[in-house]
Amino acid sequence: MTPIITAFERSPDGGKGLARDTRVRWALEEVGQPYEVRLVSFHAMKAPAHLSLQPFGQIPTYEEDDLVLFETGAIILHIAERHAGLLPNDGNARARAITWMFAALNTVEPPILELSTAKFQEGDKPWAQERLPLIMDRIRHRLDQLSARLGDADWLDGAFSAGDLLMVSVLLRLRPSGLLDAFPKLVAYVARGEARPAYQQAFAAQLAVFTGKSSAG
Amino acid sequence: MTPIITAFERSPDGGKGLARDTRVRWALEEVGQPYEVRLVSFHAMKAPAHLSLQPFGQIPTYEEDDLVLFETGAIILHIAERHAGLLPNDGNARARAITWMFAALNTVEPPILELSTAKFQEGDKPWAQERLPLIMDRIRHRLDQLSARLGDADWLDGAFSAGDLLMVSVLLRLRPSGLLDAFPKLVAYVARGEARPAYQQAFAAQLAVFTGKSSAG
Repeated sequence: MTPIITAFERSPDGGKGLARDTRVRWALEEVGQPYEVRLVSFHAMKAPAHLSLQPFGQIPTYEEDDLVLFETGAIILHIAERHAGLLPNDGNARARAITWMFAALNTVEPPILELSTAKFQEGDKPWAQERLPLIMDRIRHRLDQLSARLGDADWLDGAFSAGDLLMVSVLLRLRPSGLLDAFPKLVAYVARGEARPAYQQAFAAQLAVFTGKSSAG
Repeated sequence: MTPIITAFERSPDGGKGLARDTRVRWALEEVGQPYEVRLVSFHAMKAPAHLSLQPFGQIPTYEEDDLVLFETGAIILHIAERHAGLLPNDGNARARAITWMFAALNTVEPPILELSTAKFQEGDKPWAQERLPLIMDRIRHRLDQLSARLGDADWLDGAFSAGDLLMVSVLLRLRPSGLLDAFPKLVAYVARGEARPAYQQAFAAQLAVFTGKSSAG
């Protein structure tokens, strides 16, 4: 069967492509696999039917025959293992690409997500303004280290991989903050990711949900 | 060659087993693989030699022949793919176990790490006390969802897997806070993990570094 992913019925970012379904759409486009999308309302995300697929009440999920997966990283790894285009064939290079998948989600994204938490869950607190520079310093520290490792390379380890797909996606969340602008190598890296035809297709597909023009990739 | 992992020369938790090398030690014990340990000082972790292995200046790393990996999740997945004992053979069950690895690191651990950040990086700020209940509520929300999914099962999806290894490790970080105590199913789940001989061996090996009795597993 054609895999089915879930996405927000109304994306909180208004179609900027920052919701996590964009990452899965991008991966499916990179490997040339068609997919269907089931849109989920905020209300339905917290209801038993969706929680049976995604115990934390989030999107995306991935359904294929009798397999149900959640967690963007796990879904993308599953796609990458079954189709060529997202992981190198060589065993060591493959393990290093997977390392960058975990680094994107587990080391670089958490301080970035603190920005959203500070804005949406603590934006009305008396400490909101004073705390912001501390969060930004922690993000800059990670960006410094990431930029140093990337250097002048196009991608993090050899050819484009699922590790780059996730790292670029994570860095894109920073664009509204302007924090990325101080790291020209990372700006160029993100631009290379965005320029990929598969990203363009994924972005257009998620935007089409928002503008009401289409809901399938 | 016998793989070499890195660990703190002086663990900040004083041997409680919360540093991430314990997770890798546990995985290696589950699959019965010997390993060596190279201890790294806080100073050396930020120096070029270590940064060439771990661009974010953290432990653990994993070296095996000419392969160098970092990120605990990636290291454990690499071990689990090469040795029996941490992932099911069936493809779908394997993908679901990997989903729990990502869920532990990417969905459950980030709010828990906010507790450490609040304590060690913002503990002297005027908002420290007032902000703590907000962080704790976010953690409780995740624990509620995780406990509901676990239910009365021993492990998250069938037999013990690398997903449980990481989830138990993440939940262990909460013990000092007392937050786990309101979730008896999760308390029992963590206890089942700790009772495994492989965990006991890993815990003893990391403690031996602290007490000065040994540094290899």
